Amino acid sequence: MSHTHSESTGPSPPSSSTSTAVHSAGFTKKINFCQLCGGPTKHEVPDGEEKMRAICTRCGKITYDNPKMVVGCLIEHENKILLCKRNIQPSHGLWTLPAGYMEIGESAAEGAVRETWEEANAEVEILSPFAQLDIPLIGQTYVIFLANLKRPHFSPGPESSECKLFSLEDIPFDSLAFSSMLVTLKLYLEDKKIGRPKFHYGIINKRPGTSPSDIHAYTLDNHLRC
Amino acid sequence: MSHTHSESTGPSPPSSSTSTAVHSAGFTKKINFCQLCGGPTKHEVPDGEEKMRAICTRCGKITYDNPKMVVGCLIEHENKILLCKRNIQPSHGLWTLPAGYMEIGESAAEGAVRETWEEANAEVEILSPFAQLDIPLIGQTYVIFLANLKRPHFSPGPESSECKLFSLEDIPFDSLAFSSMLVTLKLYLEDKKIGRPKFHYGIINKRPGTSPSDIHAYTLDNHLRC
Repeated sequence: MSHTHSESTGPSPPSSSTSTAVHSAGFTKKINFCQLCGGPTKHEVPDGEEKMRAICTRCGKITYDNPKMVVGCLIEHENKILLCKRNIQPSHGLWTLPAGYMEIGESAAEGAVRETWEEANAEVEILSPFAQLDIPLIGQTYVIFLANLKRPHFSPGPESSECKLFSLEDIPFDSLAFSSMLVTLKLYLEDKKIGRPKFHYGIINKRPGTSPSDIHAYTLDNHLRC
Repeated sequence: MSHTHSESTGPSPPSSSTSTAVHSAGFTKKINFCQLCGGPTKHEVPDGEEKMRAICTRCGKITYDNPKMVVGCLIEHENKILLCKRNIQPSHGLWTLPAGYMEIGESAAEGAVRETWEEANAEVEILSPFAQLDIPLIGQTYVIFLANLKRPHFSPGPESSECKLFSLEDIPFDSLAFSSMLVTLKLYLEDKKIGRPKFHYGIINKRPGTSPSDIHAYTLDNHLRC
């Protein structure tokens, strides 16, 4: 519910998209104490490893921080797609596909269905995986499924101010919430022009030094369509 | 490197695969202290949420625990595939595709290439995404890519005792390390019988009450091929 995704919580932009050391250092700085014993951490490269980690100075436990998955639905209904206007920060007032962090104990598909129910009060059926889009700069991976409405009913949940079906020519590209949604919708439109949707893998590399709110400041790299 | 995946670190088996409350409770129990301020946590459902979380009793920070992604490569070379015999626990002495936890700051494809380099000293080129397999019981998602060797060289890294190319009829199905690898290889063989590999999404639900080492004790649910 209130645990939604944000592209604005990353570290400083690195010099290249593969400089994981820079990222790791940025992320592990937030880990000041051990979750297990409460001891203070130090930030070092452990023996036999190559990356900086938070290591407990009391019990020795190494804390790993890994990318999070954001799961969501691209819902098709009578040649339109369902978007939600965000009623929360970040990107308040901008449009998004229903999506949010995947939880422990659920699958990506179950998470995407749950988020759609929470944000749009819509019951959906998953049709197929549509895209995996990694955003290394912020340690997030978006997993988006194509879905159908089980019943033609939807309404804004607590995190949305409006939910609306858009025909493909009316998608509000000038007021989308996130780069990930922009890429997803562009790939979907491209697929629809030439036939039926495919599955896409790609890396969204945000341009260093640009604002998280500048959703057009990215390159889509390693794009694989199958 | 030593930060490899394990299917044996999950909570007690839940009554059903969608009982996220049970899972979350099991997972958040490990979070005893706040990483930010070191204060002790309580485990409650926060206002406006539905799941049990670890909440700091000192600074109020809610700690979220999310599924981790394991990324790896299914490497094709002259109609054979490359497997590594594990030289570490869990599943010491059993065969696996090169794979490991995705790191902050890298993409899934970059992580799969890195793990292959670390475990098999092999330089690979990613060809296409092959499978996303979620294992809700243990909060893991496997993302496997088809890949080719850039050069026909490989040798065991520190976590492997042996790396070997197997023809498809010789894959050691009786001594594989993980359910995820069993499913991946079965799907791959099925695809090869009828043509070229597709992309697969599926949920591996481990049968409650079975041992993590019983890699055949699962059902593959919501399997989508595209």
